[in-house]
Amino acid sequence: MEKTGDGRDLDLAEEPRVTIWNEYRHEKSDEQVAKIYPEGIHAVLAAALTEAGFEVHAATLDEPEHGLPDEVLDATDVLLWWGHMAHDEVSDETVEKVHQRVLGGMGLIVLHSGHFSKIFKKLMGTTCDLKWRHDDTERLWVVAPGHPIAEGLGEYIELEEEMYGEAFDVPQPDELVFMSWFGGGEVFRSGLCYRRGQGRIFYFRPGHEENYSYHNQDVQRVIQNAVRWAAPTPGAMPVYGHSEPID
Amino acid sequence: MEKTGDGRDLDLAEEPRVTIWNEYRHEKSDEQVAKIYPEGIHAVLAAALTEAGFEVHAATLDEPEHGLPDEVLDATDVLLWWGHMAHDEVSDETVEKVHQRVLGGMGLIVLHSGHFSKIFKKLMGTTCDLKWRHDDTERLWVVAPGHPIAEGLGEYIELEEEMYGEAFDVPQPDELVFMSWFGGGEVFRSGLCYRRGQGRIFYFRPGHEENYSYHNQDVQRVIQNAVRWAAPTPGAMPVYGHSEPID
Amino acid sequence: MEKTGDGRDLDLAEEPRVTIWNEYRHEKSDEQVAKIYPEGIHAVLAAALTEAGFEVHAATLDEPEHGLPDEVLDATDVLLWWGHMAHDEVSDETVEKVHQRVLGGMGLIVLHSGHFSKIFKKLMGTTCDLKWRHDDTERLWVVAPGHPIAEGLGEYIELEEEMYGEAFDVPQPDELVFMSWFGGGEVFRSGLCYRRGQGRIFYFRPGHEENYSYHNQDVQRVIQNAVRWAAPTPGAMPVYGHSEPID
Amino acid sequence: MEKTGDGRDLDLAEEPRVTIWNEYRHEKSDEQVAKIYPEGIHAVLAAALTEAGFEVHAATLDEPEHGLPDEVLDATDVLLWWGHMAHDEVSDETVEKVHQRVLGGMGLIVLHSGHFSKIFKKLMGTTCDLKWRHDDTERLWVVAPGHPIAEGLGEYIELEEEMYGEAFDVPQPDELVFMSWFGGGEVFRSGLCYRRGQGRIFYFRPGHEENYSYHNQDVQRVIQNAVRWAAPTPGAMPVYGHSEPID
Repeated sequence: MEKTGDGRDLDLAEEPRVTIWNEYRHEKSDEQVAKIYPEGIHAVLAAALTEAGFEVHAATLDEPEHGLPDEVLDATDVLLWWGHMAHDEVSDETVEKVHQRVLGGMGLIVLHSGHFSKIFKKLMGTTCDLKWRHDDTERLWVVAPGHPIAEGLGEYIELEEEMYGEAFDVPQPDELVFMSWFGGGEVFRSGLCYRRGQGRIFYFRPGHEENYSYHNQDVQRVIQNAVRWAAPTPGAMPVYGHSEPID
Repeated sequence: MEKTGDGRDLDLAEEPRVTIWNEYRHEKSDEQVAKIYPEGIHAVLAAALTEAGFEVHAATLDEPEHGLPDEVLDATDVLLWWGHMAHDEVSDETVEKVHQRVLGGMGLIVLHSGHFSKIFKKLMGTTCDLKWRHDDTERLWVVAPGHPIAEGLGEYIELEEEMYGEAFDVPQPDELVFMSWFGGGEVFRSGLCYRRGQGRIFYFRPGHEENYSYHNQDVQRVIQNAVRWAAPTPGAMPVYGHSEPID
Repeated sequence: MEKTGDGRDLDLAEEPRVTIWNEYRHEKSDEQVAKIYPEGIHAVLAAALTEAGFEVHAATLDEPEHGLPDEVLDATDVLLWWGHMAHDEVSDETVEKVHQRVLGGMGLIVLHSGHFSKIFKKLMGTTCDLKWRHDDTERLWVVAPGHPIAEGLGEYIELEEEMYGEAFDVPQPDELVFMSWFGGGEVFRSGLCYRRGQGRIFYFRPGHEENYSYHNQDVQRVIQNAVRWAAPTPGAMPVYGHSEPID
Repeated sequence: MEKTGDGRDLDLAEEPRVTIWNEYRHEKSDEQVAKIYPEGIHAVLAAALTEAGFEVHAATLDEPEHGLPDEVLDATDVLLWWGHMAHDEVSDETVEKVHQRVLGGMGLIVLHSGHFSKIFKKLMGTTCDLKWRHDDTERLWVVAPGHPIAEGLGEYIELEEEMYGEAFDVPQPDELVFMSWFGGGEVFRSGLCYRRGQGRIFYFRPGHEENYSYHNQDVQRVIQNAVRWAAPTPGAMPVYGHSEPID
């Protein structure tokens, strides 16, 4: 097996292993949501990512350790995160572990109302606040046509969705891939790329639990593209702490 | 007078000197435009900038050297650029001179259809192409609320305007200040900051000649703010070429 | 008095009010440090900033509320932060308050070993780790010659300093102003600009307590420039939460 | 075959096809250079890229159309560019064609003295000037450890090389991967990523014709990584020009 400059294994051929984390509360308590996602949002995402050839695992809030014990994280290259009504029930210990994993290279894809999750706020360092309103038309325009996350799309994706409006209180992204138009008159930066530590983070706006967005083929394609983009690469290993002079 | 580290004069107190460059053709040939800008777009902009306390000069395409001989550029801290139907009539020599001035520290504010000007394309290195359509409603949302160019504004500015839509083929900006919503369904990055060489460049979308945008107080305020932001600072003087070792 | 678009006061004329926060422990416990900064690092910085025309206040760790009660923060436009051996003694309550102030527009200048302060790590979202070693020669090269923070400098600043080396685990900055060379063979991104919320943050590397860097005129000039750059501007006021459609 | 949203072919499996463009003058006229690169710089690069599994073609200045007729460009996914003493002999027509290809998605890797090539200056919009001196020690530090271009490296690469020093007059890169330390006391941003149009551009500093850098395994690995990173993805196809309203 090929080795990195400092002796670690380099293996580029395998597809990333994905863990989909879903709060999984709305689907069990709200009849309308249950119709759209009868087995949970994670089940629809899992089907789409499995079809794309990834090895997929799901984890939910109410499992022990929220379904994210070390052995699951050890086998995760890219983590998806959907949460909404119970952000505060995620333990600080789990957030801390996920944070360290992301800085160590694990990819993270934060979906929709995950903008207010503990892990996203911790990584961004800002409030991640925004404006919102139910029942609108969204049009996600591609503003970085050559970006791998936009691969295979047309000019825009149109959805029936909850509105999120600017100002969105996040750091300026390293790359802006999508911008959304809403029928009610607002705009939103809706596909944002960040690098933090050795990890890559993608925030993708759509996915209100009362809408069908995760059944949409283009939305699924974006998430598939984002998994490939966010997958860790065994890059140079940073060295920290006290250090003798080279010269 | 205070000096820089390498002996140049440091003088921060004075307000920037502004030159407004206007193609000034539509206003003379189109009756409808003449009603909106009877003395030219530059005259309305000059009034707004004079009121803000700047020393203002105007220059137009059909003057000798397009109104931009060395003595004018020598007295210009920030240059505004409005052009549309006659981009090709601007001489390469003038473009080259303006390019060198910007890289040397002169601020440049490119307005509306100036996106296709020779000077903007030369500085961006891309086609600067976009989509467009007359007669729409534009809403420019502030996405960087703490940015000095957004100073004094509300959440958004609403205008009757020509539509410009994404994709906008420009480099990702150093800072994105405004994003526009259009009634016809499009979005656009409409306030973009770039640093090139020692100079700062701001692209600001509104200003179709058949609309009243430059009479709008918030549009005027943005341009005033942008002049202050783009004004040169006597920064460190770069040194190029062959160089002896320090150590 | 001039007003913003939504009725707040716009007052650009006044100089920013600065609060210098210093841990102030080394200077009291280490004889060698006491010789270099007999009245504390804050005293030397206060003199330099007062001379530049700012209204300056100092606050230290061992004062009640670490010297940062609301009335002090209310009167602070830009906060400087120097800490090293006692980062953990800063209360989470104070960190939370400073965090909110920065996102609300207060400027923050983080100095040297402040890279490991609670407030900087919270704003960055990363470990902020790095390599280090005492007793080296540092040369801070200007890489953004037109940037206002580089105003008045020559090509580089040379100092006797502690070494900090890459990798520096921080988000890619919005603007990179200085890069450091060290005699032992390392490099470091040593002047970094960030916007977070409505606030601006500048990290500036030099300032080991056993070296004379804050007595250096160019270092003082950088800090003066950074105060002007980081000072809040009464920008557009962001609106969050549930929102009725405009159209 | 899988299709994009607007019906184009999506084919992600194939390895990118590489064309190495080399001025190929020093190697024929300078005995010392001929010893290091007897069959030209392109031959050494071609061997390294062929070994990595890419389909590789070479083109040189003195061939008809500089070796870059349409049929060659049609079969190029990523173009490497090494030039130095004869930048001016590259025809504007070829530069124009390469420029359009890059904006249309072709990757471009600009090597060493290619910083002054017509194509790089046209894409950057700046002078691309810098400081230089022969015969120094360079240490390229990885500053983005998780970046795919740093894949497989250690902390730094050490080379005997020509010195390039800051200020480097280029736009702030979208991503900064390497920073160089030089024995003579200078620093340089030596691995820079840009997106322009639908294309990706990587500037990589090493490669003076009198040094052995392209024989170095880590340098070869960086260039292999960069080819993968710069390879085009059939992203969303931008639409420009007059456009009817959607709503």
